[in-house]
Amino acid sequence: MTDRPSIRGGNLFAALPRATDQEQFETLVGAADVRIERIVSTGQASPAGFWYDQPDDEFVVLLAGAAVLRFEDGDRRIDLEPGDWLEIPAHVRHRVDWTQADPPTVWLAIHRTRPGRG
Amino acid sequence: MTDRPSIRGGNLFAALPRATDQEQFETLVGAADVRIERIVSTGQASPAGFWYDQPDDEFVVLLAGAAVLRFEDGDRRIDLEPGDWLEIPAHVRHRVDWTQADPPTVWLAIHRTRPGRG
Repeated sequence: MTDRPSIRGGNLFAALPRATDQEQFETLVGAADVRIERIVSTGQASPAGFWYDQPDDEFVVLLAGAAVLRFEDGDRRIDLEPGDWLEIPAHVRHRVDWTQADPPTVWLAIHRTRPGRG
Repeated sequence: MTDRPSIRGGNLFAALPRATDQEQFETLVGAADVRIERIVSTGQASPAGFWYDQPDDEFVVLLAGAAVLRFEDGDRRIDLEPGDWLEIPAHVRHRVDWTQADPPTVWLAIHRTRPGRG
């Protein structure tokens, strides 16, 4: 027997929380410079006045449900439907204004550290 | 005006090729250590006897359609349906045995370079 690297897997639409549950974050891949995460929202939004201001570049795609994001610069609103993806550079301030609760909203997010940047 | 980093976006299910078209590869994010790619297959499979033997770790998710992957180790077959994801470590030899042509099969792949490995 050799030491075989393992193939892991799952389904992004499996084990969805109920509409009454909290927002769910699950890290699928946690590497040194990349984190791949499934997020399931059930109606949650960012708190009033809160803005994400992330040190990492983020690629996010909405796979089920619906959501509204808002970007501070220009107070720009973006409505997301399944398949919609965004590439959000580090420190571009944004918030989640709304997510569909039922059926739940499923996201896939890829966070990438930029070496030497913070 | 400050130099604002741009937010890019699109929809993974837009501008799908026809079932008679070639397989389509589109790089959505091309960073130094991470490449995010949309692949649309319309019935293509790997050539007979061909195995992918990639230097990079790959996270792949099937978003629409259907596909059959095969892994050389143990001649393992994995059937994929929408939402199914796999984390395929570098140099794990695999091939695409079959893809659904119509409607097309849509994949999202995240290739990650592992520094110092080849």
